[in-house]
Amino acid sequence: MTEAKPTTPADDPGPSVASLETIVSLSKRRGFIFPSSEIYGGINAVWDYGPLGVELKNNVKRAWWRAMVQERDDIVGLDAGIIMAPQVWVTSGHVANFSDPLVECSTCRRRFRLDELPGCENLTTTELRDPTIVERLGLKCPVDAGPLSAPRQFNLMFKTHMGPVEEDGNEVYLRPETAQGIYVNFRNVRETSRKKLPFGIAQIGKAFRNEISPGNFVFRMREFEQMEMQYFVKPATAAETFEYWMPRRRAWYERYGVTPERLRFREHRPDELAHYAKKAVDVEYRFPFGWKELEGIHNRGDWDLGRHQQATGESLEYFDPATEEKYVPWIVETSAGGDRAAFTFLIDAYREEEVRGEKRVVLGFNAELAPYKVAVLPLLKKRDEIVEKCHALRDDLAKDIMAVYDDTAAIGKLYRRQDEIGTPWCVCIDVDSLEDGKATIRDRDTMEQIRVDLSQVKPIVMERLAKARG
Amino acid sequence: MTEAKPTTPADDPGPSVASLETIVSLSKRRGFIFPSSEIYGGINAVWDYGPLGVELKNNVKRAWWRAMVQERDDIVGLDAGIIMAPQVWVTSGHVANFSDPLVECSTCRRRFRLDELPGCENLTTTELRDPTIVERLGLKCPVDAGPLSAPRQFNLMFKTHMGPVEEDGNEVYLRPETAQGIYVNFRNVRETSRKKLPFGIAQIGKAFRNEISPGNFVFRMREFEQMEMQYFVKPATAAETFEYWMPRRRAWYERYGVTPERLRFREHRPDELAHYAKKAVDVEYRFPFGWKELEGIHNRGDWDLGRHQQATGESLEYFDPATEEKYVPWIVETSAGGDRAAFTFLIDAYREEEVRGEKRVVLGFNAELAPYKVAVLPLLKKRDEIVEKCHALRDDLAKDIMAVYDDTAAIGKLYRRQDEIGTPWCVCIDVDSLEDGKATIRDRDTMEQIRVDLSQVKPIVMERLAKARG
Repeated sequence: MTEAKPTTPADDPGPSVASLETIVSLSKRRGFIFPSSEIYGGINAVWDYGPLGVELKNNVKRAWWRAMVQERDDIVGLDAGIIMAPQVWVTSGHVANFSDPLVECSTCRRRFRLDELPGCENLTTTELRDPTIVERLGLKCPVDAGPLSAPRQFNLMFKTHMGPVEEDGNEVYLRPETAQGIYVNFRNVRETSRKKLPFGIAQIGKAFRNEISPGNFVFRMREFEQMEMQYFVKPATAAETFEYWMPRRRAWYERYGVTPERLRFREHRPDELAHYAKKAVDVEYRFPFGWKELEGIHNRGDWDLGRHQQATGESLEYFDPATEEKYVPWIVETSAGGDRAAFTFLIDAYREEEVRGEKRVVLGFNAELAPYKVAVLPLLKKRDEIVEKCHALRDDLAKDIMAVYDDTAAIGKLYRRQDEIGTPWCVCIDVDSLEDGKATIRDRDTMEQIRVDLSQVKPIVMERLAKARG
Repeated sequence: MTEAKPTTPADDPGPSVASLETIVSLSKRRGFIFPSSEIYGGINAVWDYGPLGVELKNNVKRAWWRAMVQERDDIVGLDAGIIMAPQVWVTSGHVANFSDPLVECSTCRRRFRLDELPGCENLTTTELRDPTIVERLGLKCPVDAGPLSAPRQFNLMFKTHMGPVEEDGNEVYLRPETAQGIYVNFRNVRETSRKKLPFGIAQIGKAFRNEISPGNFVFRMREFEQMEMQYFVKPATAAETFEYWMPRRRAWYERYGVTPERLRFREHRPDELAHYAKKAVDVEYRFPFGWKELEGIHNRGDWDLGRHQQATGESLEYFDPATEEKYVPWIVETSAGGDRAAFTFLIDAYREEEVRGEKRVVLGFNAELAPYKVAVLPLLKKRDEIVEKCHALRDDLAKDIMAVYDDTAAIGKLYRRQDEIGTPWCVCIDVDSLEDGKATIRDRDTMEQIRVDLSQVKPIVMERLAKARG
């Protein structure tokens, strides 16, 4: 693997079909994602998941949990608090190092991340902290060409106070990553779960970063969901563990339908590495705004457990019963974003087709990720017997899966609506159904329709769904 | 229903079997719930869910979502941000009213909630805000009998700053309730989901309250998970909607196994009502520390939508196509706690039995809530063929449900361990299995064992699980 270069596949697989605007517009129109507090004019970089978005995101989280916890015998789950003892963030290095270089224009007072100014994208960490860098490179405000201040390190952690008085002693932070919750619980988890090394701890939860320049819809938010797994290993085996996880984490996205050509690995240059990392490889996706990180795989060495052990005086060593050695485990982390993953599945699922001269928009989700698995639609909403049969079928399906009834348009339009939100199967009940007890199942992708006994609808849908799950 | 009195059942159904200490100790020992940041000496009122706790809590959340969203055609989901536009909390009344009366001892500097001082439990809201109350009742510090200050209204919202500089203009709050996220999204959700009234919006998510006196394990935490549903109705029907939800919300706890005699309703007295409530009834559970709120059902009238409409100038009225009327919907809310519900299921599931002269501890969870559905256990871990068969069976089960393998003790002890964490079924593979291809399924509650073909284990477990789900 060469540094700073994508290893596979070819550098540019061509643009994805959906533009960012298309996805943002569809998201709002159909209830995937809304601007937060919109009736108040919104709040920067926070987005709310609507009725379809929450189902999509929950399905993504469940699919991750299934692959990372349920299916495996060597990984267990955890759900630690967002607020932790503040000393944790001193030990972890976040208080000292988790910052971005901020420069300010003395004319317009706008603030910028130094590494996002034109020509500064490839500066090293050392250069970004150099107080003379603005002068040395002759940097100016990109808006009004005014003079810029020297870079100031702006810490990205949100601070608040716990307890009834605001005072220095009770400052706490909103966690900027879920990982530390795993490290400080390492010993409790290992002892109660009786796991031997190697084993992992997985966690899904919110993290908060006071980003200077959030953006690109839900790609970079100040409040976001992480899906992190920390794998604890014997130090000598960390490199092979890293190689083990790389293809598996990429394969997870492909398992749920992401176009392989829009995924690649990118290894961090030594000067890009975070303070805790010995090696870092990103799984990148080709977003409409370029190749960006989807997930990071990091060899964190013994940085975290070693530091926590030193700071607390509590032993975090592992006694290896096979070799009778004692050591602080090394950690290989796979760190994904729940919002980013949901966003990726949404973008990648989008396609436009022409059907009999008309445009058809389809979200071709893997059925396991689709918000609704099935829609039950009456051909005639004025026939009570049809509507009753539809409700009875939906209620029966809804005991096990997300199913929706809709009668607010003609059948052709109802099908299109379900295509646009990615519902894999539609069931239509018509006048003939009252006679022959059959219904039509329509497939989202092939648009093929089959006519089956009403009693067979649920078993057929459940079977197809199990197949999609793999 | 009479005020301030439990309506059903008899006042005291007797203590629950488990003491708080028993539950706290079991929770830590077996990996349900750990003190947060314990190696740092902990942090007050934050708890972390361990490998079993996270499964329990996820199962509780899923069961709630299933009952409130999936099974119903009139409720959709939402997942709004924790950080919202700060004006939302001015409009909602939280900035002005969401506070507790705090008194401070001028000798020892300890702070107390006025309404928690001996003799003050039944003071009205007006009395709690009366600056002369301490003097009038002659209250003293309960610790050192020192003089107490007049009550000060301490706002329970956590504040932080968004953006790169701490200044007044960018103060934001961590939401103290999830409900407001639903109200400000009401119009977007209704329009995109095409729902007609009455319909509801459900949400699960974290909320934060800077409680003066948190405690009783996970009962009252500063960071906690809410499971709230807001049902939007025509004003004239709010009272009947309230009556509709009361028994259903209580029944939900019973559906998942809570002892009916440990549940009751309690209606709030007029002087207890929150600023937004026209009527409030709590579902209470008999915790080891007394009858306490498990869930609140509130008639919020048009307080919320009316205020948001007024503050933003955006119409939040509903046009009723049937009657051609236009009105601001009234809201009936069911507000439950995810942590509190998980805690309740944990306490209520606990029982001790004597089996052949030995104590057996059982968590008698409904199978749907149990962290592991099945444990696969080898009778002899030294026989490779047995262990291999166990792993193959576990891996197959784990495609669909949480299954665990354990070989770190003799079979009797392994059974007891699974009883203690509530695993409904154990499968034991022994030497005979190698000959006859059969395994033993043991039931947690009856301890009955049946011998079945290995190929039948999964279908039998899945069938029993579906039955538990109801």
